[in-house]
Amino acid sequence: MRRLQIAVIGYNQDKSSEKTNQIAYQVGTEIAKANAVLICGGLGGVMENACKGAKDHGGMTVGIIPQEESKFANKFCDVVIATGIGYARDFVVATSADGIIAVGGGVGTLIELCVGYMLKKILVTIPSSGGTAENFGGRYLDDRKRVFIQTSQDAHTAVKIISDYFGSQQES
Amino acid sequence: MRRLQIAVIGYNQDKSSEKTNQIAYQVGTEIAKANAVLICGGLGGVMENACKGAKDHGGMTVGIIPQEESKFANKFCDVVIATGIGYARDFVVATSADGIIAVGGGVGTLIELCVGYMLKKILVTIPSSGGTAENFGGRYLDDRKRVFIQTSQDAHTAVKIISDYFGSQQES
Amino acid sequence: MRRLQIAVIGYNQDKSSEKTNQIAYQVGTEIAKANAVLICGGLGGVMENACKGAKDHGGMTVGIIPQEESKFANKFCDVVIATGIGYARDFVVATSADGIIAVGGGVGTLIELCVGYMLKKILVTIPSSGGTAENFGGRYLDDRKRVFIQTSQDAHTAVKIISDYFGSQQES
Amino acid sequence: MRRLQIAVIGYNQDKSSEKTNQIAYQVGTEIAKANAVLICGGLGGVMENACKGAKDHGGMTVGIIPQEESKFANKFCDVVIATGIGYARDFVVATSADGIIAVGGGVGTLIELCVGYMLKKILVTIPSSGGTAENFGGRYLDDRKRVFIQTSQDAHTAVKIISDYFGSQQES
Repeated sequence: MRRLQIAVIGYNQDKSSEKTNQIAYQVGTEIAKANAVLICGGLGGVMENACKGAKDHGGMTVGIIPQEESKFANKFCDVVIATGIGYARDFVVATSADGIIAVGGGVGTLIELCVGYMLKKILVTIPSSGGTAENFGGRYLDDRKRVFIQTSQDAHTAVKIISDYFGSQQES
Repeated sequence: MRRLQIAVIGYNQDKSSEKTNQIAYQVGTEIAKANAVLICGGLGGVMENACKGAKDHGGMTVGIIPQEESKFANKFCDVVIATGIGYARDFVVATSADGIIAVGGGVGTLIELCVGYMLKKILVTIPSSGGTAENFGGRYLDDRKRVFIQTSQDAHTAVKIISDYFGSQQES
Repeated sequence: MRRLQIAVIGYNQDKSSEKTNQIAYQVGTEIAKANAVLICGGLGGVMENACKGAKDHGGMTVGIIPQEESKFANKFCDVVIATGIGYARDFVVATSADGIIAVGGGVGTLIELCVGYMLKKILVTIPSSGGTAENFGGRYLDDRKRVFIQTSQDAHTAVKIISDYFGSQQES
Repeated sequence: MRRLQIAVIGYNQDKSSEKTNQIAYQVGTEIAKANAVLICGGLGGVMENACKGAKDHGGMTVGIIPQEESKFANKFCDVVIATGIGYARDFVVATSADGIIAVGGGVGTLIELCVGYMLKKILVTIPSSGGTAENFGGRYLDDRKRVFIQTSQDAHTAVKIISDYFGSQQES
């Protein structure tokens, strides 16, 4: 049985606040504890802090980066997918995830949320982290109402919503 | 001097109403009259009606489709770009446009709007066409406020906003 | 009835010789005379000279570039598709073509030939132009023998092989 | 220090012989023993057998598939990257690899070899496995001679060529 793949999406380092980074770290920690694989865009800010949280707790991390050279990934990625397809890699992050957690984030994060929505992935945001997570949590993105974007107060619950949905594939 | 490339984004045929299709037809008409090239996702609904409007008025149309076979394009596309990259082709529609006009639309349209926003394209929606055009016009998409999404009452003004921005490359 | 889309693939400006550029110009000329749309990678060398040949003879040209900004296209492209997906755009050039003509070319050209081969496009090379056109014309690319790569002595015949295959969609 | 990522490329299940599958299994085994991460296209044939070899020996495997749904991956992939970009995912397999080993293979394998060549990755084929590995080993792919495609008699040596190049990042 393959491990769950949970994507963490959010700000790059240029916009992420200390508070948002801490939430990202906690999300990474909880993904590791749930024995899921952390998928992300592989760059800085929320992505890097989530990866660090996962690695500090024995997790596995995958960075799917826009560039065609692995060196652009943050150093906490176990596996680097160097797509070379630019920001269209946002699609690959979302399609590769079983569930998606948004922490802060700008319009790139919104794109990833939209792709997940289109594909009816389990979507959760942590509104206290700001940005896209705050502005687009607790709602639908279009009139078809394909999947409700859930909100969570904290990292533990956010991961639990996804792992509960897929059943108890982990023993933690 | 290359002609302006204006993208029309919006509903596929399964969601587009008669009214929305008429607005799309008018947008295509106005793009042709402005001597610009119409770019779109090449499928049905808003895309097909916009292409038809342009072709009925001597315009040039380009359909950038998700599939790798040209046969999936609507029959009003002069040129078909069969990307084969699935819905990640939304990125290509937006990056290839000098300006973007949203007519109705669901979450796919929102993705294209987001990509245009990220790249600071001129963005205009026609809110009376419903959907994404109604819900996301007249606002920013993230806290960076990269580009304000303008709104227009009608097709003529929507095209004029874009062609005026790029100066008088046409004689209409 | 949509016009035929013929791709011209080959060297970028850093490797293309004067002779190869002249052949590319002739291929572009013949595509225009056949009333087909010229598709190419939109950059320099073979791509630019083919586009120039087509434009000098009233043709239509489309450049499908790796970058996400149109400014990188050569100035003889009527339409620029700014894919932003890097050299994976080689796939889009080949999938968008009804037939493909190779003029010179290195490994990027070989990739485009391979994609066309995989999809059973009509493939023609002009061996006298050197490079991939010389080394991979007149053969199959794998043991499945999906489509034989034809060779041509000159630009006129190369275009004729493709347009004859698709019937007389033009009056020239 | 990130673990080496070695790509195994080759036939899908419809063309792969028993012998080729056995070689693929051995290559996967050796990649696991070298403590490298196995990267592949995630489908059947050479890809599946290489993954199985790695999993039987405690390795880690990543499948980068053309589809946008993970269910199309073979069951020996620890991580599935569901690109949704079709066969353009061949680029992602090659760009994500530090070194590439070809086992059998048709024109899709040749595309991956070409991308690796363009990016000057360490390339090794096992000619006895047939197909692209036989036909394109021990040569250059274009006149620029960017990187010589090495050949190997067996799986152990193929992996050793790559791991030796990157130094002793493993203790096996």
